Amino acid sequence: MGDAAGPGAPELREICRAEDPARIEDLLRRVGVFSAEEIAIGRELVEERLQRGAASGYEFRFADRGSDIGGSLGGYCCFGPIPLTQGAWDLYWIAVDPAARGQGIGRALIDALHEAAANEGCRAIYIDTSSRPDYAPAHRLYAAAGYRVAARLTDFYAPGDDKLIFTRAIYIAAG
Amino acid sequence: MGDAAGPGAPELREICRAEDPARIEDLLRRVGVFSAEEIAIGRELVEERLQRGAASGYEFRFADRGSDIGGSLGGYCCFGPIPLTQGAWDLYWIAVDPAARGQGIGRALIDALHEAAANEGCRAIYIDTSSRPDYAPAHRLYAAAGYRVAARLTDFYAPGDDKLIFTRAIYIAAG
Repeated sequence: MGDAAGPGAPELREICRAEDPARIEDLLRRVGVFSAEEIAIGRELVEERLQRGAASGYEFRFADRGSDIGGSLGGYCCFGPIPLTQGAWDLYWIAVDPAARGQGIGRALIDALHEAAANEGCRAIYIDTSSRPDYAPAHRLYAAAGYRVAARLTDFYAPGDDKLIFTRAIYIAAG
Repeated sequence: MGDAAGPGAPELREICRAEDPARIEDLLRRVGVFSAEEIAIGRELVEERLQRGAASGYEFRFADRGSDIGGSLGGYCCFGPIPLTQGAWDLYWIAVDPAARGQGIGRALIDALHEAAANEGCRAIYIDTSSRPDYAPAHRLYAAAGYRVAARLTDFYAPGDDKLIFTRAIYIAAG
């Protein structure tokens, strides 16, 4: 990919650990925009990955804060192929600790997604997100990473809260 | 609802029975447009309803062919509230036996969906579907029932196979 985050980018971890469900729940609470139902679903996805492995269809990337095993997450993302499609992927979740903004974590997570996508036959990535103003930092991250809004479903989540579907094509490197 | 299917409409059944997973699989094969993966998912939804009841989030309506318990399905649909939304519902599946077309089964299923939606606090219904020509009978059914295309995701399912998102508002009767 020509848009790597560069030498200062944080190192990411791919393997899920038993402590990640609790860490993800903790991170999603700190982000502040997610409801209790959303946080529960975010936690369930990593639990399913721990139980079912790659068959879950969910891949993760984690930005650990510090190297100690008791540390917290600076951010993470969860993505994978969308069932019933040929090569469409969904970025199900991405979250960065508000206290860790500006360190390139969000962009490093997106770059890791794009690298996996290009290597694993993904044609295009989709991101479903809310139009609410508190999602503006996420929207800016998506736009900076080459995503455009492909669709808006007015009042989808609630009156006044639209669903935006961002998308970006993935170009698979000739081998 | 002002758009009831009328006195000639087929009677529908709401309660799922143990034989429905096999009947749904049989019906989806007869329809001819669904892949093996899609048929497996269609079957899983009714299995989840049988296991978890209303907590599954899936409601069903069945058009039984004949009154004998060994009979096949003339059609069915599966719908329910979309997680993380306030009052948005998804029509996950609707299928009518090609040999039973023109008997008002599709419209009766849609009318039953709209009746449940109006009674259970649904604001709007969404239907994700393929743009492929073999889905044209379904698209005509949705248009006749008041749905419009809210979004098109080009090449979503596969190159040349777009996702269409149909939607219709539900007006809850003052009560």
